[in-house]
Amino acid sequence: MTAQAPAPDATPGADMRLRHRLRVRWSEVDAQRIVFNGNYLSYFDVGITEYWRAIGLPYPEALSDAENDLFAVRSTVNYHAPAFFDDWLDICLRAARLGNSSMRFEFLILRGAERIASGEVVYVNAHPVERRARPLPERLRAAILRFEGREEIGALAGSVLTAD
Amino acid sequence: MTAQAPAPDATPGADMRLRHRLRVRWSEVDAQRIVFNGNYLSYFDVGITEYWRAIGLPYPEALSDAENDLFAVRSTVNYHAPAFFDDWLDICLRAARLGNSSMRFEFLILRGAERIASGEVVYVNAHPVERRARPLPERLRAAILRFEGREEIGALAGSVLTAD
Amino acid sequence: MTAQAPAPDATPGADMRLRHRLRVRWSEVDAQRIVFNGNYLSYFDVGITEYWRAIGLPYPEALSDAENDLFAVRSTVNYHAPAFFDDWLDICLRAARLGNSSMRFEFLILRGAERIASGEVVYVNAHPVERRARPLPERLRAAILRFEGREEIGALAGSVLTAD
Amino acid sequence: MTAQAPAPDATPGADMRLRHRLRVRWSEVDAQRIVFNGNYLSYFDVGITEYWRAIGLPYPEALSDAENDLFAVRSTVNYHAPAFFDDWLDICLRAARLGNSSMRFEFLILRGAERIASGEVVYVNAHPVERRARPLPERLRAAILRFEGREEIGALAGSVLTAD
Repeated sequence: MTAQAPAPDATPGADMRLRHRLRVRWSEVDAQRIVFNGNYLSYFDVGITEYWRAIGLPYPEALSDAENDLFAVRSTVNYHAPAFFDDWLDICLRAARLGNSSMRFEFLILRGAERIASGEVVYVNAHPVERRARPLPERLRAAILRFEGREEIGALAGSVLTAD
Repeated sequence: MTAQAPAPDATPGADMRLRHRLRVRWSEVDAQRIVFNGNYLSYFDVGITEYWRAIGLPYPEALSDAENDLFAVRSTVNYHAPAFFDDWLDICLRAARLGNSSMRFEFLILRGAERIASGEVVYVNAHPVERRARPLPERLRAAILRFEGREEIGALAGSVLTAD
Repeated sequence: MTAQAPAPDATPGADMRLRHRLRVRWSEVDAQRIVFNGNYLSYFDVGITEYWRAIGLPYPEALSDAENDLFAVRSTVNYHAPAFFDDWLDICLRAARLGNSSMRFEFLILRGAERIASGEVVYVNAHPVERRARPLPERLRAAILRFEGREEIGALAGSVLTAD
Repeated sequence: MTAQAPAPDATPGADMRLRHRLRVRWSEVDAQRIVFNGNYLSYFDVGITEYWRAIGLPYPEALSDAENDLFAVRSTVNYHAPAFFDDWLDICLRAARLGNSSMRFEFLILRGAERIASGEVVYVNAHPVERRARPLPERLRAAILRFEGREEIGALAGSVLTAD
């Protein structure tokens, strides 16, 4: 690699396909005057809601039926810097791996260019009652690949397998 | 009134039939270092859950079916003193009025003998989809009266009518 | 009253000076598939945050110091119709009464033109540690009257006195 | 390994030093009728609060001062089975690694003997304003080792280093 090569991460979040802005609420901040650590998973969840909408498959109507529903099976959050009341935050995310029945999404939360939090959530498609894993619906896989502008996700992302 | 007459409110909450204790969580406290005002409605809700259990009609299995469900139609909270992280709070409540399709519950939240918050919630029994009010199930009315040790609730409580 | 007189409430929320739009999050909806009743107070709180910003006195920096802070002393919510996941809601509010140390705000939550919830919150200005009521800062009173386009608030609103 | 060797995991949570029971609230359950994924971090937080109390160093008074405070730097949750409204859950935890300035705790959430969720949180001791990492206070380290009945934590736990 030569000096001309751009740093892969010059602009945080630039490699994330979806970006959604929200503002920290008073009820989300704790007595340390910073966003309570658990609330970042609510922010991630707002991000994934917008992702499903952006790919044309809004949850739950397009992704949940008598035989299929999506469930989180693992969440990780890394807290890089505290977020405060009234901060504008960008929730950035991308699909990082598509398995047979599960999907891994990577998240980045920014305040301007500053990394506040990062993490991932693995979702699995499963029968809503029996909770047994089922293959990802083909139209979901296709819509994600189209939105991400990729032909495949997983091998390229170099991610560790997580659920399949 | 003579000296023998007990003050009606000598022991706060003594006239409340149900009492449930909980401890303030870190995630419930805001940057003022006090319980966020909206969280008292979650505490009230914990109280009503215990009330249904205490009268032998646990929600939702005993109180929600294809034709009936309970919905809050009005909530009021008075904030008397702030509650802090780790405080033990007693959620006290009683049925204060039974109407045709609605019920009014009065709540008192205490820290020891100190009034932290008080208020009321009016619930209505309604069709879960059409949301049209329906008469309170007779066994619900009977169970409340039995639990409260009353033959009637409403006239005695001297409450303002709220929903029926 | 004559036919020319506009219906006072032809357009819900038209008489509310501030309007702020938000979208219902998955984490705010409960097992009835509707917004949990306590979460409307979080929505009201988002509204009051925007109100302070709109009048040029953002909380906490402009309204909280060593001698003054704002505390909720009473909240009321009326639930008119359920709100669902992903609904766009307009949080509308106005100052309805300015007392010596307290202020009453009226709230209306709309989905389009449909009333979802209404209510009020009374805030009191008090010493942050001793919690003793203190007069509303003059610049706060002035900023509210300017924003509401009124010379006085209280008598005109015909509200019941609540805290002073 | 011989038959006499106890299965390391015969009783889930048996190797966790602290166990705290709580009941799922209505407001914690989402429209899938299961506990919202982010709320497990609130449960973990309730667990760590009880842990500090159990070792004799209640937070914040014993663990937070002008130079020290604890901050989450990483959280992971694995969702094994859904928890429902009114479920009794046991929050089990143990210190799994003590570094120079950080600590890793492992969590297990059980419903009876059934694993509902597991995970870990890494906390770092840092200056409350500058957020620079500082060595764990010696009395904190000593209290944890005493409570866990260990002379050292980290090497024995075979954990991957996370923050120091």
